Amino acid sequence: MIYNFSAGPASLPREVLIKSQSDLINFKSSGMSVMEMSHRSPIYMDIQEKANYLLRDLMAIPDTYDVLFLQGGASLQFTMVPLNICHSNSIGFIDTGIWSKKAIEEAKRLKKDTHILATGKKQRYTALPDLSQLNPTTSLDYLHITTNNTIEGTAYHALPSIDDVPLVGDMSSNILSNNYKTTDFDLIYAGAQKNIGPAGVTVVIIKKELMTYEKNCVPAMLTYKVHGDSHSLYNTPPTFSIYMMSLVLEWLKQFGGIKAMTQYNEEKSHLLYHYLDESDLFFSPVIKKDRSLTNIPFVTKDVATNEAFLMYAEKRGLLNLKGHRSVGGMRASLYNAMPKEGVIALIHCMQDFEREMRIIK
Amino acid sequence: MIYNFSAGPASLPREVLIKSQSDLINFKSSGMSVMEMSHRSPIYMDIQEKANYLLRDLMAIPDTYDVLFLQGGASLQFTMVPLNICHSNSIGFIDTGIWSKKAIEEAKRLKKDTHILATGKKQRYTALPDLSQLNPTTSLDYLHITTNNTIEGTAYHALPSIDDVPLVGDMSSNILSNNYKTTDFDLIYAGAQKNIGPAGVTVVIIKKELMTYEKNCVPAMLTYKVHGDSHSLYNTPPTFSIYMMSLVLEWLKQFGGIKAMTQYNEEKSHLLYHYLDESDLFFSPVIKKDRSLTNIPFVTKDVATNEAFLMYAEKRGLLNLKGHRSVGGMRASLYNAMPKEGVIALIHCMQDFEREMRIIK
Repeated sequence: MIYNFSAGPASLPREVLIKSQSDLINFKSSGMSVMEMSHRSPIYMDIQEKANYLLRDLMAIPDTYDVLFLQGGASLQFTMVPLNICHSNSIGFIDTGIWSKKAIEEAKRLKKDTHILATGKKQRYTALPDLSQLNPTTSLDYLHITTNNTIEGTAYHALPSIDDVPLVGDMSSNILSNNYKTTDFDLIYAGAQKNIGPAGVTVVIIKKELMTYEKNCVPAMLTYKVHGDSHSLYNTPPTFSIYMMSLVLEWLKQFGGIKAMTQYNEEKSHLLYHYLDESDLFFSPVIKKDRSLTNIPFVTKDVATNEAFLMYAEKRGLLNLKGHRSVGGMRASLYNAMPKEGVIALIHCMQDFEREMRIIK
Repeated sequence: MIYNFSAGPASLPREVLIKSQSDLINFKSSGMSVMEMSHRSPIYMDIQEKANYLLRDLMAIPDTYDVLFLQGGASLQFTMVPLNICHSNSIGFIDTGIWSKKAIEEAKRLKKDTHILATGKKQRYTALPDLSQLNPTTSLDYLHITTNNTIEGTAYHALPSIDDVPLVGDMSSNILSNNYKTTDFDLIYAGAQKNIGPAGVTVVIIKKELMTYEKNCVPAMLTYKVHGDSHSLYNTPPTFSIYMMSLVLEWLKQFGGIKAMTQYNEEKSHLLYHYLDESDLFFSPVIKKDRSLTNIPFVTKDVATNEAFLMYAEKRGLLNLKGHRSVGGMRASLYNAMPKEGVIALIHCMQDFEREMRIIK
């Protein structure tokens, strides 16, 4: 028995893996694997339609929004969003760490005017900047935020808003695991490999009125309207990843939906944060009000102790706890598929390690 | 027992599916599915490295070429190729049907000068144009061909060449199944979902000297050099698709490699072409010298008979024989994973249908 705390690709629900294994060679008596099916065959299109329906249902996505299943991860969205919805050339960004910085860089490569309206740089990204007084000096095509910062361990619990400026959210690491209101956003995007399914599919939820089409200008593959008009079948979609996503969404619905899952994620993360706040050895570098439910970085007093703990945890089957290479330390990613038992096992491991450290001294 | 003649996503080798099924929940006693592994973990990186090694070995790719595993299919390559290797703005194309036309369209969207040096339009793409006298009137950044035309059923058995002009091949539907010489090309690209693995991964084989990097100009995700420098780990790759590819490549190596596979594909396709040429009912619309080994369109005298045959075949478990919606009729895709038994079953079915038709009359 292991627990996999990877930040992504990450744990999938056990039931989902078992179901996909039993279907792998012969899906619904078709004699075929889902991987072998034409993306235009009715049997496959049902799968994709089901994923679409379930996502709309779970996130309460109104008909005024389109749902797209694309490829290339959030990283390609850093390019697609400005290419598609930045017409007057100005974008507002909130700088909350490495991933928001990457989004800014890619907008710059497209020669967009990027306005950093607030930054958490001074707090070394251990807190989100104050967004109560956003006063852009220029008109903006949209405001971009990273709803959850996978590396830094921060997340928005209340969303910023500027009158008449569309809100775009990179929700890669907390989609389906925080109870946001979809309609607070005009565009949401997320790579699947954390809370939705395996790597290889990207979800884009976009207000239809934002989907315009400039013929002979933007590459077809990078145009939301092209994908929307063809129901994400403009070219061959990542069929098996979409099938896995449909199973994960079904599992989430059976769990009780996003509200129930958010509550479960709060319970899991509170257990760990509570332990970190009480511990003499481990602590969270993140300010309390901005702490993420899904990605929890933590450290000890020095690098050697961090390393010793990582080895200790791995021996107990608690895997992939190493922090991102840019920040070091440890990180426990508690996505939807991580059971509470995994968090408890981690806390027990930390308690035992702490006790043994004390004895050695 | 069924045979799946889909043009893509297509049949996978039975042995590969069985292996992936047995590994699905617990890969190499890791306690994890490949889908759950961090793309930066040693256990996953071994898989990707193995896929890279096997592809290099099978296609005899020299060190002067890089191998990239990307996303977005051939459709995104229609944009990436001109973005990356068209600097003086002129591209030569050979127009051999729908997919080459799409490549031309996307280059045009990027405002490139597209020169159609030869076209099969007059022959309604049932033959490849004569390429013995290619005389471009302008200097070209590269010459683009579609090595196999999935929809039209034609394929190059000898490659065109223009002095000092790099050759780019969209090899999506006959990579690993025709014995081309890799070094005859400067860049090869292919979506995986026909001969390499499941949908969701795109292979690019590119001469290193073509990989330049224009900082702050081209989006990072669309820059070959960015992916090359990071060994296709710039962002999260489609890990499970790459794992499946590694199994398919291993299977192909055990089969005897591309030379042995090409011979097998020749045997399979010759059986079917021979039958089509002898039949009073079915025939191939494609000129003999340009016939594809992997995609074999065929028709009867009228639409109603085509429809009747498709139903007749489906009842026998011969699936996805319907031709592409743009050309109609039938199409049998005989990729590497289609066993000779499948082709024989198809021929028997056609013979029986022909006999029954004769009796009815």
